[in-house]
Order: sequence, then C-alpha cells, then structure tokens
Amino acid sequence: MKILDGKALAKEIKVELMEKVNQLSLAGKKVPHLAAVIVGNDGASRTYVGAKVRACEEIGFNSTLIQLPSDISEADLLEKVNQLNQDNDIDGFIVQLPLPQHIDEKKITLAIDPKKDVDGFHPENLGRMVLSLPGFLPATPAGILEILKRYDIPTEGKHCVVVGRSHIVGSPMSIMMGRSSYPGNSTVTLTHSRTENLKEITQQADILITAIGRPGYLKADMVKEGAVVIDVGITRIDAPETKSGYRLKGDIDFEDVAPKCSFITPVPGGVGPMTIVSLMQNTLRAIELKAN
Amino acid sequence: MKILDGKALAKEIKVELMEKVNQLSLAGKKVPHLAAVIVGNDGASRTYVGAKVRACEEIGFNSTLIQLPSDISEADLLEKVNQLNQDNDIDGFIVQLPLPQHIDEKKITLAIDPKKDVDGFHPENLGRMVLSLPGFLPATPAGILEILKRYDIPTEGKHCVVVGRSHIVGSPMSIMMGRSSYPGNSTVTLTHSRTENLKEITQQADILITAIGRPGYLKADMVKEGAVVIDVGITRIDAPETKSGYRLKGDIDFEDVAPKCSFITPVPGGVGPMTIVSLMQNTLRAIELKAN
Repeated sequence: MKILDGKALAKEIKVELMEKVNQLSLAGKKVPHLAAVIVGNDGASRTYVGAKVRACEEIGFNSTLIQLPSDISEADLLEKVNQLNQDNDIDGFIVQLPLPQHIDEKKITLAIDPKKDVDGFHPENLGRMVLSLPGFLPATPAGILEILKRYDIPTEGKHCVVVGRSHIVGSPMSIMMGRSSYPGNSTVTLTHSRTENLKEITQQADILITAIGRPGYLKADMVKEGAVVIDVGITRIDAPETKSGYRLKGDIDFEDVAPKCSFITPVPGGVGPMTIVSLMQNTLRAIELKAN
Repeated sequence: MKILDGKALAKEIKVELMEKVNQLSLAGKKVPHLAAVIVGNDGASRTYVGAKVRACEEIGFNSTLIQLPSDISEADLLEKVNQLNQDNDIDGFIVQLPLPQHIDEKKITLAIDPKKDVDGFHPENLGRMVLSLPGFLPATPAGILEILKRYDIPTEGKHCVVVGRSHIVGSPMSIMMGRSSYPGNSTVTLTHSRTENLKEITQQADILITAIGRPGYLKADMVKEGAVVIDVGITRIDAPETKSGYRLKGDIDFEDVAPKCSFITPVPGGVGPMTIVSLMQNTLRAIELKAN
C-alpha cells in the first residue's frame, strides 16, 4: 500500500508554478492575478479563502481579497462580479460558496465571465469539459486527475466508481474519468444516495473516488483488493483530546481500508492540498487562454 | 416483453404539439419558427433535415430550410450563423452535421447562440444539463427520457448502463440518467471502446442504452433477464431483397435479445422518431425560455 501524498505533490507543483511566474516576470509579461470574493464571516469560508490568497503569495501571483458584508444585496454582489469581469488586471476570480441565503448562488455563478471562472463552476466550462474543449476544470476533480497522473496510475479500461454526485466534485469527476484522455478512458460508474446495493458496485472499483461527507462510511468489505482509493470527504469530528477540539476525517475508514489498497489518499493531506493548487493552475491557464 | 413504440409515441407528442401551436395562434402569440442549415448534398443529411422540416409543417411550426453549397467558406457559414442568431423571427436553428472537412464543426457549434441552440450541442447547454438548469437537452437522449417517462418505467436506484460515449448521445445520456429527477436517479455506468469486460457490465444493467453503431453487436448473453433495452444504433446494412437495397439495424441483436427483455425499442421505429419530436419540443421551449 502506497500513500498518495497530496501535500508533497502540491508543494512540488507550487515550485513549478513559481518557476513559471519567474519566467513571466523575466520576460516582462503579466503575472497572474487572482481575486477572491468572500461574503460574510463564516469561519470555514474564511479559512479556505485565506489559504487561497496565501498560496498566491507563496507562488508569486498577485491576489486581491474582497471582503463583503453578509447583508450585501444580490444586486450589489452582481455589480461587484460585473466589475471583476471587466477589470483587465484580474485574470481570474472566485466567489467563495456558500453565500448567505438571500443570495441566489446560481445567479452569481452564471454572472461570472466563463473566461475568468477559475473555479470551473460556470455551465459553459462544465460543457467544455464534457466536450474536451479548452476551459477551466473544477479544482477538486482536476486535482485528483493530477494525483493520478503524477503517480502514473493506469486508468484506461479500469473501472472507476465515483460515490457522490455533487456539482463540484462527483458529477464532474465521473465525466472527466470517462473522457478519451489520460487520466481518463475509464469505465465509470456514478453512484449516489439513491443507489441500491452500493457495496456490490464499490467492490468492483479498480479506482474508487468518494465525495459524500460521511466520515468513515466506506469500510474494507466495500473495497476490492488492490484498489486505488481517493477520499475527497473532509468532515470535522469532535476530538476533545486535540488542541483545536476537532480532527478531520474522510469518507473512508482509513485504518480498515488502507491495508487492502494499492494506493490511498490520507485525510488530511490527500486531495485537499491539491484543490488549491488546481485553482492556481487554472489562474495561470487563464492568462494562456486569453493569449489564444 | 413489450415493445417501446417510439413511432406511436412520436405521433402522440406531435398531436400535443399541434394543440399547443393552436393555442398560441388563438392567443395571437408567435408560432415557433425553426431554421435548418444544410451544407452540401450528403444524402443522409438531406433525408434527416427534410424529415425535420416536414415535422415542423405537420405540427404547424414555421420552418426555413437554408441550403448552402458544399464549398462555402467557414467565414461565410459563421456569418450565416450570426445572422440567424440575430434574426428575431427565428426561435431556434440547427446546423446539420457532419460539415465538409474544411469547416471546423466545433467553431460553428460554439458560434450558435445557446438560447437558439435547439440541438443542445453548445457547451453552455451541456453544462446547464449537468447542473439541471433550464436549457436545451440534446434531442436523442431527451427523446429516450420521454420514452422512459411515457411508459412509466422506474429508473430511481436502477443500474443504467450506457454503451458508447459520443458527445451527442452516450455522454449526455449518462449524465441525464444520473441526475436527481425522474427519469433519472439511476446508478449510471458509462462504457466505451476502452472498456474491459463489457459483458460483465452490461449483464448488470436494469436499463441498457446502446449507441455505438455496430449492428447486432449486443447478444442475449450480454443482457440481464428482464432488462429495459434502448437501442440508439441505426446502421444501414445491405439487403438485396428489399426495394431500397438496404435495411436498418440497431446495435442490439433484436431476435436474440428481445425475449429476455421487459421492454425493448425496435429499430427502426424506436428512438429515431423521438429524436425529431425532441427537436420540436426544444423549439417550442425556445419561445418559453425567451419569455422568462
């Protein structure tokens, strides 16, 4: 059993990105500029956005953090999105989800210029993904592809089972793994809350990707011997013995499942760090796409 | 075993569409107007486009057939697309594929205004499909959903296996069957040319949908007892005994497979007639979407 070390990979890719930024600077070209919009004071959201801005700084990207009050109107937020769409200095931007209940997230997502949608959530980018046209891939599934690629894991003809059909992970992941490319060319099964006999299906997976947010849900008897297991779930569970009072747990019962796997991602330190790096890669890509 | 009679269903839906057109007329509202662009003289394309225009006439839609020479330049075709995008009288239009080799089909598809893209091939519409947002569904998979719905076939929690991952049938079909809706909520497996042990997978299908264009490829030993079988394949095979010299054959070996099924579509007369009707439904929908 080998650990798929997302943390180490993410570091490696950050160094590569730094080198690319250096090259751009030396050539007198524009350095990528990411803006992140955060509405309100949700703790988890602030942590995520903070990590994204910090990653920009590490790599040498420019970044702008736009903090808006939780009672901002939908119209004002749309106006802000529009300003960012038109700001030539901003190459890509994200609006951190979730948004307060009085704001329609779909409306905001649709208002973002697909060419600056580095989260890859706009329908135009999802459709481009289906058709394998140039565009932005959603960050988490793109990070998983990067893990598979950098660990040279064969995917062609393998049976990949995705558990969970969220719009930002499970659904796009299932589409990406079935496309004619590497990583990809897998036979893909997408399962979800309505799936009957989940165990029968996960047992068939050569590559098992879980994104349901149910800590420790998948046990060894649901996993095939030698499977590659990718755990996207990150749930905080109480842990009074720790300083923070909680620890992070994935969808996979790691201790139970790991001995059966050929490869497995830990939680934390697996998929998580790759998501931010994918966002950075998308931001660099925004400059390249603009140049074409 | 019951036949899923697409031909009869298509007739039924045409009558419903006629009634809707009548209501629009009586209310003094605009009647849907579909334009179809055909480039060159390919026999099959002319047959398909002819059938679409005829369906419009039958139902009471307005239709415009735009015949362009096979040596039209890409720029001139893009200009024509642009004219149709801007023509307020045209609610939706299609550019019949395939196009001559000197024209980039992707470029043409991307040039069509997503709000008039009644074929549902534009990435924005495919992405809207992934996210279950209002838009146009590609005609053939939409026609299959309609068959499942009108025959009251349960899909929730069922294992749906799609054979073939084309951009216009297999890929969107797999996405649609996995969404949270009816028909949908199936566990979906997408298989394709790189799939290993296809038979093991098709044998698990409660609902089997084939779209590979390999006549008679799927035999009884690949199908589970009681499965619902939908055959999208339509291939012309030589048949000297017939007047035309050919007959149409699906991907399913019908005589072999039919006795095992609970439901099966014939070829011809199954999915084919539903595709045109879906295009008509999309064109009517174009008016409704415009009104919102």
